[in-house]
Amino acid sequence: MTFRATVLSLYPEMFPGPLGHSLAGRALERGDWSLDIRQIREFGRGRHRMVDDTPAGGGAGMVMRADVVADAIDAACPKGDTRPKLMMSPRGRPLTQDLVRELAAGEGALILCGRFEGVDERVIEGRGLREVSIGDYVLSGGETAALVLLDAVIRLLPGVMGNQQSGTHESFENGLLEHPHYTRPPEWEGRTIPAVLTSGDHGAVERWRRQEAERLTRARRPDLLGKD
Amino acid sequence: MTFRATVLSLYPEMFPGPLGHSLAGRALERGDWSLDIRQIREFGRGRHRMVDDTPAGGGAGMVMRADVVADAIDAACPKGDTRPKLMMSPRGRPLTQDLVRELAAGEGALILCGRFEGVDERVIEGRGLREVSIGDYVLSGGETAALVLLDAVIRLLPGVMGNQQSGTHESFENGLLEHPHYTRPPEWEGRTIPAVLTSGDHGAVERWRRQEAERLTRARRPDLLGKD
Repeated sequence: MTFRATVLSLYPEMFPGPLGHSLAGRALERGDWSLDIRQIREFGRGRHRMVDDTPAGGGAGMVMRADVVADAIDAACPKGDTRPKLMMSPRGRPLTQDLVRELAAGEGALILCGRFEGVDERVIEGRGLREVSIGDYVLSGGETAALVLLDAVIRLLPGVMGNQQSGTHESFENGLLEHPHYTRPPEWEGRTIPAVLTSGDHGAVERWRRQEAERLTRARRPDLLGKD
Repeated sequence: MTFRATVLSLYPEMFPGPLGHSLAGRALERGDWSLDIRQIREFGRGRHRMVDDTPAGGGAGMVMRADVVADAIDAACPKGDTRPKLMMSPRGRPLTQDLVRELAAGEGALILCGRFEGVDERVIEGRGLREVSIGDYVLSGGETAALVLLDAVIRLLPGVMGNQQSGTHESFENGLLEHPHYTRPPEWEGRTIPAVLTSGDHGAVERWRRQEAERLTRARRPDLLGKD
């Protein structure tokens, strides 16, 4: 089954962008996922195709119009399209690996890329948009956030990662940050590889990795512990 | 002063990507920031320019070699280059708007985009790489994360945002999620704009926005409260 992504943006030229290369790009060529990019401005009002207007109550910036955004959504999602409708927004539910897995198990998603000043609240309510935030910082628009969300989802689609075992020892897949990695050469600038990793004792290697993952998580992200 | 970004990647064709358009693209043309993209593979070993090898201790995936990555960093950062050296990694310190502001106030950054399997720990230590995570999910590589970090930083550089007032009422700039926005038309699909916003009472508008920001933050992100 193909994962169908529909993206609504004022900058469609940003897509597929980085997702046209490497893992995601090859998966796109194979048809493991599809990308339908829509220019919101096509639904703009008047001769100048206006998509935004000044905020009610005053203040800086512009707000995307409810009617324009709704028309763009309705044109991209005919009735019966049950894919989740997402809006990339710093106000949203934080993106987690659990949500990534949930999306990857579904049939696709519609993703609205807002401008940073905001989108009229009524279309968020009226079309049931689920606001999703990729992190606690502000972007120039939802486009780079949408690229990140899709990158995370696409790599989990069936057949996309060559080695299915990758993905089980990673950060967040078991509630911990990933342990340190080492590879050849055995010595570099006077630094060596921890002896246990070259001991051939697989049990000891597993124990060391688990301990290091726990140590790193405690030191850097104590907030992750106890979440599982 | 130009903010100098140097990006080390195995997929240099992903850059500037979305950052070549809109706000960041115009800022790049004006010279508000510069982008130096380096292909790590140029420093690969042997006839096939190998950049990675199997993990010490066994397991899935490949690990980027310390010597190769160090050579790429050293070539991009001559001695005396005091820009922070970052590595995009899910194990890193979470990117926050405070860190974005700190970076935007500096002279630039070197950003290493790792593969998701990992980078040899010794070069992270040996070159003092600061691991930065854009969120608790796993990407196919550090590239889309680097694009997000740069997008967040670039919009804060002097002269990039037309209206300098934008940026003060946003999510995280005051420790709260942003209040809801409304614009014309006054009624849409039976939904109206809250009366206070069209009352002309600026004090009442400000109070309403503050209350809504607090209400949203309490409901969606109680973890943000008490952080300030």
